[in-house]
Amino acid sequence: VWIEVDTDGHRSGIMPEQDTLLAVGRILHDNGIDVGGVMTHAGASYELNTREALVALAEQERAGCVRAAERLRAAGIPCANVSVGSTPTALSAERLDGVTEVRAGVYVFFDLVMHNVGVCSLDDIALSVVTTVIGHQPEKGWVVVDAGWMAMSRDRGTSRQTRDFGYGQPCTLDGTPLDGYLLADANQEHGILSATARKSGATARIDDVVTRFPIGTKLRILPNHACATGAQFSEYHALAAAGELATWRRFGGW
Amino acid sequence: VWIEVDTDGHRSGIMPEQDTLLAVGRILHDNGIDVGGVMTHAGASYELNTREALVALAEQERAGCVRAAERLRAAGIPCANVSVGSTPTALSAERLDGVTEVRAGVYVFFDLVMHNVGVCSLDDIALSVVTTVIGHQPEKGWVVVDAGWMAMSRDRGTSRQTRDFGYGQPCTLDGTPLDGYLLADANQEHGILSATARKSGATARIDDVVTRFPIGTKLRILPNHACATGAQFSEYHALAAAGELATWRRFGGW
Repeated sequence: VWIEVDTDGHRSGIMPEQDTLLAVGRILHDNGIDVGGVMTHAGASYELNTREALVALAEQERAGCVRAAERLRAAGIPCANVSVGSTPTALSAERLDGVTEVRAGVYVFFDLVMHNVGVCSLDDIALSVVTTVIGHQPEKGWVVVDAGWMAMSRDRGTSRQTRDFGYGQPCTLDGTPLDGYLLADANQEHGILSATARKSGATARIDDVVTRFPIGTKLRILPNHACATGAQFSEYHALAAAGELATWRRFGGW
Repeated sequence: VWIEVDTDGHRSGIMPEQDTLLAVGRILHDNGIDVGGVMTHAGASYELNTREALVALAEQERAGCVRAAERLRAAGIPCANVSVGSTPTALSAERLDGVTEVRAGVYVFFDLVMHNVGVCSLDDIALSVVTTVIGHQPEKGWVVVDAGWMAMSRDRGTSRQTRDFGYGQPCTLDGTPLDGYLLADANQEHGILSATARKSGATARIDDVVTRFPIGTKLRILPNHACATGAQFSEYHALAAAGELATWRRFGGW
């Protein structure tokens, strides 16, 4: 059994200095159950967006989790492992003294939330949804695509960040971001692509969506949250550098 | 080929009186392609919550779609079918003259959004997620359960309605709603159950969550949006009146 430690007040676990930590460790140990280690996840890092704040939280996560292990050991309870997590802190930690495991998930793909946190560039994002233009509402400046929230997920993680990407960043099929366009809204099976700003050049921009994105145009949408978008599908289509396509079944559930 | 008609300005399709309708019908017909019918989906009905408004939109949907078919027929383009949709209008239509098909989806399960629209009671909701209490944060009044948004989906459809159910309405395992409690927030794998109001009886309520919901307690959560929640799973566990459980594989995709 591992003991979850709360190092940032974000979610669940026992705080490193709480009496409960030793009480739980003692109950396990005295009943012949091995304490495998302590683990934490500094999920509050998702709300940050400066290098300084991320470095500080990574150190708080490390120090708190190591401290919990040391308290258990000092009380005579063996605690071999110290596991820390979260993609932003994993990529910002300046030291990992005392840590035996780093669990980071979304870093394998990255996404627009991580881009806003500041730990990846748009070009680093390795998961996207291919979609097709299926209609227009020229008066509204809308391009209707066949990727709604059933494709992108309902995740609107960037809505609370400095740059709101709507339901995703549209790109050409080769992955080049379409600057000035957004998947602005989504229904279950329909996505609404539109221009992000409509100031002086408004009319031109609205006409532009029909001529620029004719029916049948294939686009690629970068997701707010790779975990949520991935979970909408049963498999990945993995594209190798040379262009070959492999199909990878996804693990579902949690 | 069917022609999509826009009867409520909500999403996609051609408006019944637009010249484009006949132009599209003509191109299809003159090229030997059968126009199977006209179809519409009055999705704007999700934003209503009075019987009068729903009845009016159902009639607008019916009349607009029938009108589109009549215009095509008058122009010599056969159009056999008239298909209307949306759960709230399907349940509110007072007449269906000229309609050959009604497509309603979420009405097979219902959900909290439909409850707020006013077309079902909480007791009508036939889809729920069973979850287990896995922790507490007593100072915050939180019960941590193992149904986060990966279980419930990210859908927050009730946030724009008169009653916000957070990420879902907790119930006892037998389906009785726990009045005064909410799945107030959700992380990927963790849900946060808490009391909805904390006025005078604040402290009592916060202590209450630990004693009332001990670790291991099984609860049932009613979802905001049955379509979104269902899509998070690969199968349904269907419960018969006599208690037998059947496993139904889900269709995935769209």
